Amino acid sequence: MDLERISLAIEPDLLRKFDVLLAESGVTNRSEAVRDLIRKRLIEEEDAGAESAATLTLVYDHDTRELSDRLVEIGHEHHTRILSTLHVHLDDRLCLEVMALRGKRGDLRRLSSQVLGLKGVLHGGLVLTSLDVLTGVTR
Amino acid sequence: MDLERISLAIEPDLLRKFDVLLAESGVTNRSEAVRDLIRKRLIEEEDAGAESAATLTLVYDHDTRELSDRLVEIGHEHHTRILSTLHVHLDDRLCLEVMALRGKRGDLRRLSSQVLGLKGVLHGGLVLTSLDVLTGVTR
Amino acid sequence: MDLERISLAIEPDLLRKFDVLLAESGVTNRSEAVRDLIRKRLIEEEDAGAESAATLTLVYDHDTRELSDRLVEIGHEHHTRILSTLHVHLDDRLCLEVMALRGKRGDLRRLSSQVLGLKGVLHGGLVLTSLDVLTGVTR
Amino acid sequence: MDLERISLAIEPDLLRKFDVLLAESGVTNRSEAVRDLIRKRLIEEEDAGAESAATLTLVYDHDTRELSDRLVEIGHEHHTRILSTLHVHLDDRLCLEVMALRGKRGDLRRLSSQVLGLKGVLHGGLVLTSLDVLTGVTR
Repeated sequence: MDLERISLAIEPDLLRKFDVLLAESGVTNRSEAVRDLIRKRLIEEEDAGAESAATLTLVYDHDTRELSDRLVEIGHEHHTRILSTLHVHLDDRLCLEVMALRGKRGDLRRLSSQVLGLKGVLHGGLVLTSLDVLTGVTR
Repeated sequence: MDLERISLAIEPDLLRKFDVLLAESGVTNRSEAVRDLIRKRLIEEEDAGAESAATLTLVYDHDTRELSDRLVEIGHEHHTRILSTLHVHLDDRLCLEVMALRGKRGDLRRLSSQVLGLKGVLHGGLVLTSLDVLTGVTR
Repeated sequence: MDLERISLAIEPDLLRKFDVLLAESGVTNRSEAVRDLIRKRLIEEEDAGAESAATLTLVYDHDTRELSDRLVEIGHEHHTRILSTLHVHLDDRLCLEVMALRGKRGDLRRLSSQVLGLKGVLHGGLVLTSLDVLTGVTR
Repeated sequence: MDLERISLAIEPDLLRKFDVLLAESGVTNRSEAVRDLIRKRLIEEEDAGAESAATLTLVYDHDTRELSDRLVEIGHEHHTRILSTLHVHLDDRLCLEVMALRGKRGDLRRLSSQVLGLKGVLHGGLVLTSLDVLTGVTR
């Protein structure tokens, strides 16, 4: 990975405040921090067709009738998109499950809505990341 | 306003993608775009005591009994925080109102919850900005 | 506006927690609070063609060369979408401006990107609301 | 889990639009959909001390020198908070990792900032959920 050097103009006060924020988070490399901001912005702007990876987190009550069956059904229906699943028993009834997903951004969003809308799924969230933006930048 | 020049290392591919995004939004100055990302990040991280400016947008039905009275009451109660208000008649019953606010971030958030929770206020949102981050950077 | 009554099933503990949150925000009407959540959800899901109202907030340095000219140009270009503008002098150089907008959701988003990307615009945000969802519900 | 029945007043048009949205997402139970909105709202409002579960997703380049060592170090430092980790090889260099977390909301946020700020971590996100809100509601 060869890096290119660019030069930017910035107000000294803004720079100082940014450096303080980075120090507080234990970040020591300013270039890396700016690259993080740029990657985040690029990923936010991607369209529904972008090749993406994601995680879908859900919390559910494992006593809900038929929910496990529905989750297994959905898993098979989308088996090409669900790479693997991690399961944690939060207490005697609550389960946290997180699925690693891969596919087109729009398809992953739809899968997420479908799963989070299932009866018995109490809460959750989708973290979308990008294969295109991230793969390109690491070579 | 004297700008400082800094040099950053970045993957060529990431830089190219960022430049494409900027060109699509009509942005011609890369330094300015990075400063925007840094300011946004700093403002997101500010705490409840930060000196802030904000706008509070609300949509309401002007036929709701006692709502205008409540809004006027709240306005007087917070008169030091509400700088001014813009009102638009969206149709024969719906009003859009946006208040320019100034004060501590935590106080402006509380004022926002109170107003958006009023009976008859149908929807709205708060845009928080920062006097501290923005004032410092423009001199 | 005639309201319909619906009946919902809810866990007593969840209901109690919701009531505590409402009491803390000074909200006295539980139906109104649920309607607020439903409206918010519907507005989040609207597509680019939905007839919308919005406010666009920006903070800028009025000394930035040519910015005021660009803002005026953009204003005329989009004069059918920009209903009116409120301006506040935050200090000797910083201006907060908020524009009330009306048009298709996608067009208002594009206008927002264009304005927030202008050189000299330091920060800002868009609050999108809906004419369709809100108009329909108030009759 | 005994449910309580409550009755709400709602505009017929808003109710119809909500039902259309639910049908599009394949949701068949309106009570469940409203409970989802209420839980989401309650979880958003929780404070830093709330007992929480979370997932932290990160994408990184496994060739980054010392990153794996740093991740292992952080893992041991926070071993009481990190319940388990799922790892996916996205391509020959990119890794997606998701950690299941448990602890106080504020601590999980800090852990997340620390990990996402590490050199070599390209992107990621935190999904915070609540033990308090969700546990209470399922009995």
